[in-house]
Amino acid sequence: MPPLQERNMPFHSYMDIALAEAHAAAARGEVPVGAVIAGADGVIAQAGNRTRELNDPTAHAEMLVIRAACAALGQERLTGYDLYVTLEPCPMCAAAISNARIARLYYGAGDPKSGGVAQGPRVFAHPQCHHRPEVYDGIAAQAAEQLLIDFFVARR
Amino acid sequence: MPPLQERNMPFHSYMDIALAEAHAAAARGEVPVGAVIAGADGVIAQAGNRTRELNDPTAHAEMLVIRAACAALGQERLTGYDLYVTLEPCPMCAAAISNARIARLYYGAGDPKSGGVAQGPRVFAHPQCHHRPEVYDGIAAQAAEQLLIDFFVARR
Repeated sequence: MPPLQERNMPFHSYMDIALAEAHAAAARGEVPVGAVIAGADGVIAQAGNRTRELNDPTAHAEMLVIRAACAALGQERLTGYDLYVTLEPCPMCAAAISNARIARLYYGAGDPKSGGVAQGPRVFAHPQCHHRPEVYDGIAAQAAEQLLIDFFVARR
Repeated sequence: MPPLQERNMPFHSYMDIALAEAHAAAARGEVPVGAVIAGADGVIAQAGNRTRELNDPTAHAEMLVIRAACAALGQERLTGYDLYVTLEPCPMCAAAISNARIARLYYGAGDPKSGGVAQGPRVFAHPQCHHRPEVYDGIAAQAAEQLLIDFFVARR
């Protein structure tokens, strides 16, 4: 696929959908993180965090959206597809993004506490990482971060 | 829970069940990795790798067994439970083991190519890691490794 600029890809629209998924997660009492997988033909899958609802510590938005996209496409890899997520992926999700062969990762807010892309294990930075997506950070970061702040302030 | 020695825990028996799950995975045409979660009362869940069958790059044995154990117990965390797996977990599974608050991780063969515990991102080694299990490696490592070698030789 041609790079972002040439495709004139509406990545802010995709991040808006991810933000809507994060809002919906907050309304369910879940930590507000949302994710979208899109290809040349648009959105393939979208999901929000459901760890509490599903009693599943692996049910982060990125994991659910990868599983949903693979199910929709009937394939084990998402080569050429892009993932949009409102928060920097944790190490589990970063490694799943690599395993799924996602082409490009767009994320919103950085996560100094639990992020695994730009800090901590920096999953894509090791020679053992078999596939590295292109990474674009800070997309709609302020909206994503405010959503998290509002959620945790309300919970106190 | 008291440490392993005091409980006289039959960890070789649990690893035998994990090896049986790995054998079953190979018979399904999946990379042969198997996992078990056990607590003071014995096995809670067991699973083998199903990435191909499920078209799901996240369906590693460890992820499936964590999800199954959480579902069986109706809880999001596995505090006090132990995970047995025939191969060193990848970064995705290592981070999931941390997220699930697994008490002890027993694994068989090391995985220089894709492991995330003793090499590469070393997921548990970072200050950002919120929960570190006790790690015991090399349990029935030769049997686990031979199973992988036989599988990949047969596939050539």
